[in-house]
Amino acid sequence: MAGYSGTKEDYLKRLRRIEGQVRGIARMVDEDTYCIDILTQVSAVTKALQAVSLGLVEDHLSHCVVDAARASDEAGEEKVREAADAIARLVRS
Amino acid sequence: MAGYSGTKEDYLKRLRRIEGQVRGIARMVDEDTYCIDILTQVSAVTKALQAVSLGLVEDHLSHCVVDAARASDEAGEEKVREAADAIARLVRS
Amino acid sequence: MAGYSGTKEDYLKRLRRIEGQVRGIARMVDEDTYCIDILTQVSAVTKALQAVSLGLVEDHLSHCVVDAARASDEAGEEKVREAADAIARLVRS
Amino acid sequence: MAGYSGTKEDYLKRLRRIEGQVRGIARMVDEDTYCIDILTQVSAVTKALQAVSLGLVEDHLSHCVVDAARASDEAGEEKVREAADAIARLVRS
Repeated sequence: MAGYSGTKEDYLKRLRRIEGQVRGIARMVDEDTYCIDILTQVSAVTKALQAVSLGLVEDHLSHCVVDAARASDEAGEEKVREAADAIARLVRS
Repeated sequence: MAGYSGTKEDYLKRLRRIEGQVRGIARMVDEDTYCIDILTQVSAVTKALQAVSLGLVEDHLSHCVVDAARASDEAGEEKVREAADAIARLVRS
Repeated sequence: MAGYSGTKEDYLKRLRRIEGQVRGIARMVDEDTYCIDILTQVSAVTKALQAVSLGLVEDHLSHCVVDAARASDEAGEEKVREAADAIARLVRS
Repeated sequence: MAGYSGTKEDYLKRLRRIEGQVRGIARMVDEDTYCIDILTQVSAVTKALQAVSLGLVEDHLSHCVVDAARASDEAGEEKVREAADAIARLVRS
């Protein structure tokens, strides 16, 4: 089971809102809205997605990494390495 | 008229794809997919949104800023300031 | 001549401060400071460098891009393309 | 003791190189180097600082978080929360 199930409804709600925001940006493009206003909206969606990522990282550390650290040295190391790679992709995206 | 109308269809296609990817992430959460795999997908969507932003910035510079620079000193300065603010929001998001 | 000479002293002052902050981080590492405190300091330096970049982008748009837009279509396009590439590197770094 | 001492020399070497690069950027500004070339150099330094941060995060997870997870639930939770906050600052910087 994944580490975020306690707040699953919350993630689903946030992702549905983001989906609606992306649809709103498409509508702005379709209606020839001024570029700067579209850019502002794209930045807002990017920030919302980042907040989802940061929540997932924290949930992952709290559950999967902590559990693995308790199970064995090897399991802990493997999960830390995997989490660090995901964090690196996040920082670089 | 906005500065990106020549490639409007291209932006709409990319935004529809991003909308579908966000819906896919919601599905992954709903099916308890492993957090790291969801994070990878969220990073991909963030990168796709960034590419849209960078395209909009370039279109804006090519059309609105260049036209304003030719119209008058004040118009040029105003558009440069506005573009610089949008770029700052983008870099910080 | 570069587009930022009016505020050259300001940039030099900020860069000297950043250099001192990087030296401070090395000292923190050398003295085995707690990792989280070092991370906070590295984030502060990254933000300061970003502010320098955003200032340079705005100066570049105000001077080089605006001048090129007035000189000719080709010169304008070339400078816009070059600026857009630099902004993309900035957003992705 | 901090979680990165095994590779302390490596961090110090990287930070000294970054300090030299920042000094190089100041020299470029002083010599009126073309803005785009300075921006490229600033992006390189930002990336180098990010790599230092990501190394520190991984070291922190491997040592402090793993040790705390084994010590007690409360200690684990506290370190995870602190690490998540530092990662959020990093992603937003």
